[in-house]
Amino acid sequence: MRAPLHVFADTSAFGTALARAARRRVAPVELHRFPDGESLVRVRAPIGSHAILVRALADPNGRLVETLLAADALRRAGARRVTLVAPYLPYMRQDAVFRPGEPVSQRVVGRLLGAAFDGVLTVEAHLHRVRRLAEVVPGRSRSISSAPALAAWLRSRGGAWLVVGPDEESAPWVRAIARGAAARAVVARKVRHGDRAVTVEVPEAVGGARAVVVDDVASSGATIAATARALRAAGARSVDAIVSHAIFAPGAEARIRAAGVRRLWSCDTLPHRTNAIGVAALVAAALPRST
Amino acid sequence: MRAPLHVFADTSAFGTALARAARRRVAPVELHRFPDGESLVRVRAPIGSHAILVRALADPNGRLVETLLAADALRRAGARRVTLVAPYLPYMRQDAVFRPGEPVSQRVVGRLLGAAFDGVLTVEAHLHRVRRLAEVVPGRSRSISSAPALAAWLRSRGGAWLVVGPDEESAPWVRAIARGAAARAVVARKVRHGDRAVTVEVPEAVGGARAVVVDDVASSGATIAATARALRAAGARSVDAIVSHAIFAPGAEARIRAAGVRRLWSCDTLPHRTNAIGVAALVAAALPRST
Repeated sequence: MRAPLHVFADTSAFGTALARAARRRVAPVELHRFPDGESLVRVRAPIGSHAILVRALADPNGRLVETLLAADALRRAGARRVTLVAPYLPYMRQDAVFRPGEPVSQRVVGRLLGAAFDGVLTVEAHLHRVRRLAEVVPGRSRSISSAPALAAWLRSRGGAWLVVGPDEESAPWVRAIARGAAARAVVARKVRHGDRAVTVEVPEAVGGARAVVVDDVASSGATIAATARALRAAGARSVDAIVSHAIFAPGAEARIRAAGVRRLWSCDTLPHRTNAIGVAALVAAALPRST
Repeated sequence: MRAPLHVFADTSAFGTALARAARRRVAPVELHRFPDGESLVRVRAPIGSHAILVRALADPNGRLVETLLAADALRRAGARRVTLVAPYLPYMRQDAVFRPGEPVSQRVVGRLLGAAFDGVLTVEAHLHRVRRLAEVVPGRSRSISSAPALAAWLRSRGGAWLVVGPDEESAPWVRAIARGAAARAVVARKVRHGDRAVTVEVPEAVGGARAVVVDDVASSGATIAATARALRAAGARSVDAIVSHAIFAPGAEARIRAAGVRRLWSCDTLPHRTNAIGVAALVAAALPRST
């Protein structure tokens, strides 16, 4: 019997799917919050010599601390190696000092996780200035592309898609999705003016297309909404959208719907009613073998 | 001109008092929260070669992450050393694996802070199984006793006090306060049955005494309430109470008042309307000289 996956309750849907794909059991991680705001975690036996902890780190600050506590608990309970599976990894967009006096939060969080875990597996980390997650999270860390799952989803829906990325940085990912879905790909030109203020230009001819906007996260929804408006203004026949991570800050979904997005789908890395695209099998295939 | 103290807004009352005592200015640390729950901090110039960051870490998880981000910001802005002044330090009571599968949260938090800062100064850390804070927070770390400030406060109120500690572990601290206040000291016997369930026995004769219960924190208030009830049952003439850190989870103050505590005072390490006892001068005297 292989050791179970140690799964926080807020990641139980993904954790259960991952356990099924990896033919393991789920061992829930207990979480208690004291009246003063401190957290206490408790992991359940059996603990394998290489323990795997599963938690998505949306709304991250509290979850980060609790996840670091759980790593300590697993080691004290006997694990010699601990891998974190964080299907959503936060703070990856804060990857530079944009204004004097700022930290590089991506690196701070990467160091915290790298010091606590032997490796971190995630899905579709937002990496722009580096190519490999291990440059940010020291150890056997890897970001797994969600592109094969998005491509399979689009194929399963049938028809001729135009896969639209919101900015030039997304081009390789967008082309990988389009290739897998036997579809066309275009990327838009995006200019960000603030947390929620974004303008997007759709450079290529999209008239009559059945467009699907793809993005890694939709935190405010402004990027997808602006892209959808630009597509509709340029004559797209229909606009759907897929996000890898259903972050959706308050108002985001309404903003996307109001821009004329017909159907909104997400991967199951964060629990949300738009979840449609499972990525557990992709993650299961990347789990360390030696456990 | 010496470098300013970098102070988070939620610690501005203490930070201002500390700056006055240390003859420095306050440089507010800016804090922005994105819609997805991530935080961005920004420190303001001038940054000294040895920067001092000030933040009390009550309700700690979010504040811990933000404080680690600020340490990175100070170093990237030029600080070669960074000291954290955290007048309240959380997680110090979780200092052992009480049940199998638990972490030693105290050590996890200590390592996080030790890796980010060259030293941490705090007030009245709850240390039972170790004697020195540096054993928990690697570096030039020190917990400053609040006893001189409590003693000075009791002296300033006049009269003959009976200083009452809630348990045997508090005895050295309670005796230090009593010595400084030229008062008598006793310690009670406390048995904890849960987060909020505590019973206390007052072993010595306290009949007719003007008692003041002293404790480091009052998170649920159960300990102070039980001690006050025991004192009143044993014939104390009046019962007041002092806590070093005004944590006060919801309901705590009411629980303490309902037990017959007449006056409730706290140190100014955490902002609260019971704040009466300033400890900034004690902390200022312990600040590193080389900055």
